[in-house]
Amino acid sequence: MTNQLDKKSQAWSALFSEPMSELVKRYTASVFFDKRLWQADIQGSLAHAEMLATQNIIGASDLADIQRGMAQITQEIETGAFEWKLDLEDVHLNIEARLTQLVGDAGKRLHTGRSRNDQVATDVRLWLRSEMDLIIDLLADLQKSLVDVAEQNVDVILPGFTHLQVAQPVSFAHHLLAYVEMFSRDAERMVDVRRRTNRLPLGSAALAGTTYPLDRERVARTLGMVDEAGNPQVCQNSLDGVSDRDFAIEFTAAASLCMVHISRFSEELILWMSQNFGFVRIADRFTTGSSIMPQKKNPDVPELARGKTGRVVGHLMGLITLMKGQPLAYNKDNQEDKEPLFDTVDTLKDTLRIFSEMVGGQVNPATGQKEGGITVNAAAMEAAVKKGYATATDLADYLVKKGLPFRDAHEVVAHAVKTAQGLGVDLSELPLETLQKFDSRIEADVFGPLSLQGSLNARNTLGGTAPAQVRLQIARHRVRLG
Amino acid sequence: MTNQLDKKSQAWSALFSEPMSELVKRYTASVFFDKRLWQADIQGSLAHAEMLATQNIIGASDLADIQRGMAQITQEIETGAFEWKLDLEDVHLNIEARLTQLVGDAGKRLHTGRSRNDQVATDVRLWLRSEMDLIIDLLADLQKSLVDVAEQNVDVILPGFTHLQVAQPVSFAHHLLAYVEMFSRDAERMVDVRRRTNRLPLGSAALAGTTYPLDRERVARTLGMVDEAGNPQVCQNSLDGVSDRDFAIEFTAAASLCMVHISRFSEELILWMSQNFGFVRIADRFTTGSSIMPQKKNPDVPELARGKTGRVVGHLMGLITLMKGQPLAYNKDNQEDKEPLFDTVDTLKDTLRIFSEMVGGQVNPATGQKEGGITVNAAAMEAAVKKGYATATDLADYLVKKGLPFRDAHEVVAHAVKTAQGLGVDLSELPLETLQKFDSRIEADVFGPLSLQGSLNARNTLGGTAPAQVRLQIARHRVRLG
Amino acid sequence: MTNQLDKKSQAWSALFSEPMSELVKRYTASVFFDKRLWQADIQGSLAHAEMLATQNIIGASDLADIQRGMAQITQEIETGAFEWKLDLEDVHLNIEARLTQLVGDAGKRLHTGRSRNDQVATDVRLWLRSEMDLIIDLLADLQKSLVDVAEQNVDVILPGFTHLQVAQPVSFAHHLLAYVEMFSRDAERMVDVRRRTNRLPLGSAALAGTTYPLDRERVARTLGMVDEAGNPQVCQNSLDGVSDRDFAIEFTAAASLCMVHISRFSEELILWMSQNFGFVRIADRFTTGSSIMPQKKNPDVPELARGKTGRVVGHLMGLITLMKGQPLAYNKDNQEDKEPLFDTVDTLKDTLRIFSEMVGGQVNPATGQKEGGITVNAAAMEAAVKKGYATATDLADYLVKKGLPFRDAHEVVAHAVKTAQGLGVDLSELPLETLQKFDSRIEADVFGPLSLQGSLNARNTLGGTAPAQVRLQIARHRVRLG
Amino acid sequence: MTNQLDKKSQAWSALFSEPMSELVKRYTASVFFDKRLWQADIQGSLAHAEMLATQNIIGASDLADIQRGMAQITQEIETGAFEWKLDLEDVHLNIEARLTQLVGDAGKRLHTGRSRNDQVATDVRLWLRSEMDLIIDLLADLQKSLVDVAEQNVDVILPGFTHLQVAQPVSFAHHLLAYVEMFSRDAERMVDVRRRTNRLPLGSAALAGTTYPLDRERVARTLGMVDEAGNPQVCQNSLDGVSDRDFAIEFTAAASLCMVHISRFSEELILWMSQNFGFVRIADRFTTGSSIMPQKKNPDVPELARGKTGRVVGHLMGLITLMKGQPLAYNKDNQEDKEPLFDTVDTLKDTLRIFSEMVGGQVNPATGQKEGGITVNAAAMEAAVKKGYATATDLADYLVKKGLPFRDAHEVVAHAVKTAQGLGVDLSELPLETLQKFDSRIEADVFGPLSLQGSLNARNTLGGTAPAQVRLQIARHRVRLG
Repeated sequence: MTNQLDKKSQAWSALFSEPMSELVKRYTASVFFDKRLWQADIQGSLAHAEMLATQNIIGASDLADIQRGMAQITQEIETGAFEWKLDLEDVHLNIEARLTQLVGDAGKRLHTGRSRNDQVATDVRLWLRSEMDLIIDLLADLQKSLVDVAEQNVDVILPGFTHLQVAQPVSFAHHLLAYVEMFSRDAERMVDVRRRTNRLPLGSAALAGTTYPLDRERVARTLGMVDEAGNPQVCQNSLDGVSDRDFAIEFTAAASLCMVHISRFSEELILWMSQNFGFVRIADRFTTGSSIMPQKKNPDVPELARGKTGRVVGHLMGLITLMKGQPLAYNKDNQEDKEPLFDTVDTLKDTLRIFSEMVGGQVNPATGQKEGGITVNAAAMEAAVKKGYATATDLADYLVKKGLPFRDAHEVVAHAVKTAQGLGVDLSELPLETLQKFDSRIEADVFGPLSLQGSLNARNTLGGTAPAQVRLQIARHRVRLG
Repeated sequence: MTNQLDKKSQAWSALFSEPMSELVKRYTASVFFDKRLWQADIQGSLAHAEMLATQNIIGASDLADIQRGMAQITQEIETGAFEWKLDLEDVHLNIEARLTQLVGDAGKRLHTGRSRNDQVATDVRLWLRSEMDLIIDLLADLQKSLVDVAEQNVDVILPGFTHLQVAQPVSFAHHLLAYVEMFSRDAERMVDVRRRTNRLPLGSAALAGTTYPLDRERVARTLGMVDEAGNPQVCQNSLDGVSDRDFAIEFTAAASLCMVHISRFSEELILWMSQNFGFVRIADRFTTGSSIMPQKKNPDVPELARGKTGRVVGHLMGLITLMKGQPLAYNKDNQEDKEPLFDTVDTLKDTLRIFSEMVGGQVNPATGQKEGGITVNAAAMEAAVKKGYATATDLADYLVKKGLPFRDAHEVVAHAVKTAQGLGVDLSELPLETLQKFDSRIEADVFGPLSLQGSLNARNTLGGTAPAQVRLQIARHRVRLG
Repeated sequence: MTNQLDKKSQAWSALFSEPMSELVKRYTASVFFDKRLWQADIQGSLAHAEMLATQNIIGASDLADIQRGMAQITQEIETGAFEWKLDLEDVHLNIEARLTQLVGDAGKRLHTGRSRNDQVATDVRLWLRSEMDLIIDLLADLQKSLVDVAEQNVDVILPGFTHLQVAQPVSFAHHLLAYVEMFSRDAERMVDVRRRTNRLPLGSAALAGTTYPLDRERVARTLGMVDEAGNPQVCQNSLDGVSDRDFAIEFTAAASLCMVHISRFSEELILWMSQNFGFVRIADRFTTGSSIMPQKKNPDVPELARGKTGRVVGHLMGLITLMKGQPLAYNKDNQEDKEPLFDTVDTLKDTLRIFSEMVGGQVNPATGQKEGGITVNAAAMEAAVKKGYATATDLADYLVKKGLPFRDAHEVVAHAVKTAQGLGVDLSELPLETLQKFDSRIEADVFGPLSLQGSLNARNTLGGTAPAQVRLQIARHRVRLG
Repeated sequence: MTNQLDKKSQAWSALFSEPMSELVKRYTASVFFDKRLWQADIQGSLAHAEMLATQNIIGASDLADIQRGMAQITQEIETGAFEWKLDLEDVHLNIEARLTQLVGDAGKRLHTGRSRNDQVATDVRLWLRSEMDLIIDLLADLQKSLVDVAEQNVDVILPGFTHLQVAQPVSFAHHLLAYVEMFSRDAERMVDVRRRTNRLPLGSAALAGTTYPLDRERVARTLGMVDEAGNPQVCQNSLDGVSDRDFAIEFTAAASLCMVHISRFSEELILWMSQNFGFVRIADRFTTGSSIMPQKKNPDVPELARGKTGRVVGHLMGLITLMKGQPLAYNKDNQEDKEPLFDTVDTLKDTLRIFSEMVGGQVNPATGQKEGGITVNAAAMEAAVKKGYATATDLADYLVKKGLPFRDAHEVVAHAVKTAQGLGVDLSELPLETLQKFDSRIEADVFGPLSLQGSLNARNTLGGTAPAQVRLQIARHRVRLG
């Protein structure tokens, strides 16, 4: 792996009788998408070189040369001066060729005891690990935004739907906290995937390990690939090390679930912003108008986010299809793992970022306060609850407490609802004497349970929608999210 | 839809109190991927303008201005001089804004009676139609390459596998022609999808049709959206016209099937090139070596193609997920239809192009002959057939013809195979007297059916592997493919 | 293939040293799901036998025996007397073993020139063809139901949504006809798939064709596998014939698209039934209540149908994954094609049947009239259109006709909408003098375009929502659907 | 929720004017698949009743009645005496109706403070938890089988492939241990999913919590829903509690990955059993023959398992599609979660069970020894390694150690390989003098590295294929697997 790298097509010359066509080169090259791995690639190379020197496989001056060369390459890439070459196929060869150009023989010695198979597996894991750390932070931000808005809306009453039919009154805060639960599970899953991603394939070489006396655990420690107790985490089987893409699939599955949650929340935002609901508004900068219809303000961001769920789910399907039926060890098919993974990360990060701000607003530097988050129309929500006989269950419970078996109570209430529907009023708007016609046990105290607030307060067990419970949950999330 | 286009964020100004953030702009804009629709966009606009003029909705001089402006824009885009602006969101607004800059009021009149909803639907259909025409041609090329190689290998005998176990001898040409059948079905499907794609949504406007007296059928005719009989094909319902993405899903499903065929062929090429088979070689330019292992020549192209199947299947899944559960009419989710569609087209075209050349070679300008296609190792194939008792069925058939019931014949042959396995020889290598021990009806004429060529020739019914049949099929394909 | 069938595990005895375990038997057997192919299996066998006799491969009395035996087996299966045996693995061996039991040697001769590989491919095609014919009919029924309801609601005005925001008024009939377009495309696709399904693999034998002088085209004709011109349709390559499952994937893709349409319609029905819309009701028998909440009436059927979209899409993905990367010819993986295909057919048929009745009602035998279809609340729809400034575009168009450039008109209307929003009224409820403050060209004739009916009538081009256009479309569908 | 359960269609009578049609009943009912949840349903009910009694919500005698009734129902179901009724819709109502029949009022009181929404969520979690425990055990069994076979084959040399081209020699044990790594990751994932599944939704009631003073943590403890520290695990938000299906998707994703591993192993087994490899045999009971081709022995089980990957992946995609875009809280769509989940569990369990036995054999009761596992043909493996110049890298390494730069060494070896290919011999079969022509530094000691065993032994770092390393790994697995 040396100076032949200047022209990759000469790298295998003795056995190869013709150069690659441009189309084939483009079809098989990866540099134009895998160059984003450059930081991980350099990080991995430096850890590898440091170990090679410690093990006396390369000399101290080689190490110094490599470190110097990599520092320069880092600068070149950061400033855009680095010239990426399609002929050099991928990020690894591009960087290595430049290194050799810069520091000569030391660059040629860097590849000792490794191959591109274990190198790329290491790079992708390092890169994904740092992206997952960002994603975990973004998930926390989104949860905080939701908790912030929840805290301001504990006493706002929303129709709780099942089957999109009004079911029972719920606190709007309680509703938002359901999403906090979902995103907190997403973060849990990311932590689990991170644990399995944070293992070192380097040292697996092409597929069978190497003949050099590597200290793989040292490299793992240098790269922070350790468990909670600080033990180095190393792929224990070289064939598995170069061919395992479980972590990519597992991450994409976790991302898909997160996008499913985003899609559910988006669906609700879109509904809530529809004129027939009118429950919330989001800031104008997350909407667009129409160049034709002057009255339009469309919830573009939630719609796009809902649409992007398909994108991420598609990547999951693509990655699974990719790996299905592949024999050991490395096959070129695996090169196709990167683009879906990259796009999944980008989509998820952008979406979480935008949703945090769309829900919770952004800090106004002048005041230090968040502004521009979701706007709640409590009156519209309350009007909607009243359309659906949301406290019918409470009336049945009331009758049960007065001694009626539930089955009869249920039937009594069904008749009362039918009567109220006919009159176009809510149960709580029926006069006492009318209610008493359905069951004589009904007394004036019925209007407590029949009120929205009474119904809400009554659901006061762990996880229930009573404001007292909701405040406990907010406090728990505050502690948890720091 | 006019000069406010210089700064799209002002297009909805009266109702909007804040500009979009850069992140939101990037999240919602599409110009960086939908600009590839520019030709279709201009083509559609010119047909629309021509009709507007014919209907006296705009003036003749407006039309002339628009045509002149579009000619200039075409040139600007082709030469790279056109400046695409993120602020202008998408390909449509970018082109329209430039047109208005160039020709003033006429540009402002172009959007009469249409909206971006029907415009983008039209653009995508026009673009996809022309891409499908290319794909149909590429499928024909690949079929021709396969037929060419088949023609040279009618008498080459390959082990026909079922369950990857040697089953019966088949002509290598016959095997290749199985793929011709698959790719010809793929082309059939493309023709069907093309028919449903080639319908005009323009005139649906935002969702409900327009108040202008458009002649939609004229536009359809101008754009070649006609059936075999020349009748214009127009989307008959405006709500459906702006929201239908069936054609994109249907195309991606057809592309997925085609990639499944490619993946099956790739799987076989990879197997056949493995040292334990050694049946074929492909030209060096479709393979790569290893920078570590000097002896390697890896079938990168078939492996990558097999991997890219996942990519296309993922896009199909993404598109279906995208559309699932969307209420009418247009929702912003639909913007997510383009990238998977574009990538599917690119992947399929590149793959077909490369496979045509990899199988059939490319024309050497010096000789006018194709060179560099697949190289067949007939000896290795023949050696492999002989490992698997491929003519055992023929021995059973022989015994049936001698009067033995098939069930008994089957049992007799199983014993003969067991004996031959013990001796490490083929059935045809057992001495006559040994064979006769299994059944006394066996005579010297048994060695005809037991030979590979005898077995092959005997399968001489329509669709069978006998060389005579295979030659008939080749002739049929030659006629069909022109 | 004879009497050893009484105990399948003995069928390969000479080479096999141990019987299958029960778990393995269950894992590999298919009889408990593939027995539903029995009619196709018998149909295919009779056609094959008839041809064998015509070709003098079996005798006339053999044919008579086979026909007699199959008649009895048909009766046994229909009456439930037939004993299906797991030991006999699949539908083919179960029927053949019974046939041999009933008619002896003739039964043993039936399998001449075929194998289970081409037999099962033929069975599945025959079965799917007849199911597709049913599905095409069910799609027509659903379209008719939609057209019926449309016809009664041409003048009912619904808010046309884009982005679930009120956009423009549309006729409810027009909205329903959008779904007619979708289901008519579904039927088109089914016809295309049927054409590719209706081809005969029989005669491909195990993989290479047979040594018997079959007349495959005769069999195709007997089985109705002919094109429009009556030409027999025969799989032209034996390797492809036994391994092709394109038709199953293609059918499942078409079914997925149809379920996507169902899911979109379901989404709308669920929305429309939500108390905040209240646009329609479906008959009680398509809903369920709650055993807890006495007031609930949940749209179970649309919800389940929306959910079942996932099921069918999952089957599509499963089938594609199944075929990806399979080498030729038949592999046991293919056995997994049946359950997803069967379940897709069942799900689609049930769903279409229920939706036809849910939308259009069912015939009351007493009156001969359909009853119990969807109930429309025109007042609720109209109230909803008025919430969204649906005629804002019409006001802009009005101003354009008065000479204002569209860009300025758009801006004027945006200001008018803002004012109306502030007052909580519709544009049409603003006094003329208020409107004139925005632009002095506005006169009393503005209230025509500002009315819902005026807006609707104005969109009178092909495919537009004007009642006149909608009636033309209904007439077209009536002719088309017969 | 009481005696009306005898006829479910009367449960909502006051508001419902017509009974369900049979087709609708079948479409919406779930009892025929969800009855397999009966044990979890009873387990959950008993824990709920015990808590209700402790909280004095029901009386001690009610609890005793419920316990007695459930004991009888358990017996009835186990003996097949229980009559499942479609009219009662699902497992919950079937059991509750029978309970009320048996014990009267106490049965009617069981449903206090819960609804079917939280009940079914609890049942599915309890059921899946126990199935995952089985799956974790089965994964351990399969790993043990692989380790057993590995232990017997440490010194057997297999061609290590990359790109299905011979790359380097590896120990067959090393190769098998790569799969142990995969299945051990699968088990890790199952443990993670189990943790998130093992949380109690009960007490969420319909969607908003209940008005009864439940002790949800007590129920969690009774049901073993506790973390490692014994803390009860309760869903903290009632809306999320009834609508969360993350655990089902997460489980199916983990199962899909496991099936991907199975598919990779199957692919290799199928390859290895192909006559051109002939590396292994599996016992006859995992194969089938052909009723036509007497010589066939097909690897049915690995093929079917590879095919069943599609099935499980399809279920994953189905479940994700199901949940995408659902608004809170419970929607009927969710009923579609069960069949894919059930089938995934069944498929995975059967597959793991069969693979354990297929690889490792089963215990012969007579000897106490395992018999009938995979049979290894070491000679065929060794012959195959020799076809591929597998020690070419070792020759390059040898030259590097003699002072040649790797790049030159790589080139030298490429020439040597070309020469050996021309002669049809391995590098180790070239005479010393021939080798020396390529580089004069080559001496007699070259034949050590050029030998397969020498190459193997040299890869002696952590995770490498040297027998010493492989034995360390086997020891580690033995400890880990107990």
